[in-house]
Amino acid sequence: MNSYNNDGIHVIPVKGIPEVAPNDDLAGMIASSIDLVDGDVIVVTQKIVSKAENRLVEIDPEIGHKPIVEQESVRVVRRRGDLIISETEHGFVCANAGIDLSNVESGQAALLPKFPDKSAKRIHDSLLHKHGVRVAVIISDTFGRPWRRGVTDVAIGCFGLSPIIDLRGTQDALGRELQVTEVALVDELAAAAELVMGKAEAIPVAVIRGVNPEWLGDKKGVVSEIVRSPEEDLFR
Amino acid sequence: MNSYNNDGIHVIPVKGIPEVAPNDDLAGMIASSIDLVDGDVIVVTQKIVSKAENRLVEIDPEIGHKPIVEQESVRVVRRRGDLIISETEHGFVCANAGIDLSNVESGQAALLPKFPDKSAKRIHDSLLHKHGVRVAVIISDTFGRPWRRGVTDVAIGCFGLSPIIDLRGTQDALGRELQVTEVALVDELAAAAELVMGKAEAIPVAVIRGVNPEWLGDKKGVVSEIVRSPEEDLFR
Repeated sequence: MNSYNNDGIHVIPVKGIPEVAPNDDLAGMIASSIDLVDGDVIVVTQKIVSKAENRLVEIDPEIGHKPIVEQESVRVVRRRGDLIISETEHGFVCANAGIDLSNVESGQAALLPKFPDKSAKRIHDSLLHKHGVRVAVIISDTFGRPWRRGVTDVAIGCFGLSPIIDLRGTQDALGRELQVTEVALVDELAAAAELVMGKAEAIPVAVIRGVNPEWLGDKKGVVSEIVRSPEEDLFR
Repeated sequence: MNSYNNDGIHVIPVKGIPEVAPNDDLAGMIASSIDLVDGDVIVVTQKIVSKAENRLVEIDPEIGHKPIVEQESVRVVRRRGDLIISETEHGFVCANAGIDLSNVESGQAALLPKFPDKSAKRIHDSLLHKHGVRVAVIISDTFGRPWRRGVTDVAIGCFGLSPIIDLRGTQDALGRELQVTEVALVDELAAAAELVMGKAEAIPVAVIRGVNPEWLGDKKGVVSEIVRSPEEDLFR
């Protein structure tokens, strides 16, 4: 396919990132915690992006977090007891519209970044212009899914790599055209990053080193490329 | 959480595995292609497992692969044109009941392994008893999902590690009980492995080295642990 010498990838936890507060410089915090190299993919969890972008809201103890979930939703998909599965304005379908009550101060909730692809671009641009390193950036979050138990991390924003790798027209090892053609690269990278983060270990950033350079350099985002339009989604 | 020194994980493509034929010894082929060490997680794509287990069937050119899909399905979830999303007897919901037309000879289809958790256990046992290495094994396949474009690799069978990590009751970095509690470890490992496989590159096995040893040693499988029962699935 290409001349990339596929020797494997390294998924590295970025340790030592301090608690993030509104207006903190995430790119600077990352760059001072690990030596980055060109071609790295930096996966940053939504929570610290939301904190840095001051997407924290107070929860009224009288009424709980449900009104916030409803306000952050454009469509409720399912309700069961306290759980609401809804679609956010970005088009993500997830529990509680992606608002997050863990790892934030009691009485607060962290909303999703308003424009997570732009959040990724800002970190990308700052790492390029202030720290001299050309990387790709993914903002990740933890979502459930139908039919399968357990949550996995997926991408909610990205910049600097192809969200989807389109293998249409390439041939399989026996020379036949591939049927399964579009791989959700950013979601697989987000899942790989989660393996070294761990929910309780407070490692909010991972670096994935050694990926195929052909995946890099794209300017497309998650919202335009990964979110399915209702017309093409078999499940609406 | 534990004393594991989390220095990151390495995802290594296993190169040089020859074309697989019925009754081939997959464990032997893997062991002779890479030096395994205790604690490795071996991710094996469904296709070579199906081939080794002789799950290949002829497609009648007059009627195509659809009758095979129907036969392998216990419930059709959606139909659109040529595409059928259905539930297999294992409980997996996927396109064309998981039958695979790429990377098999023209006119043939590869059915899913009948008992993919047992397939994983067989490879595990053979690596342990014949090759002296104690690893975990995941059988992976490529599935689509609702709401998000692109396919990702997930686990359809496993042995020797915890399919799900249950973080219920553990505390987040601020000492509050975590809400999101069950991480689908095997699916994140399968996704990470796909990053070094590549659909067209014919690398059907990857090794993930350096995972938390606390994840290892479990005997549970994917079918019992990851497939949601209809009662607890918000999406049926």
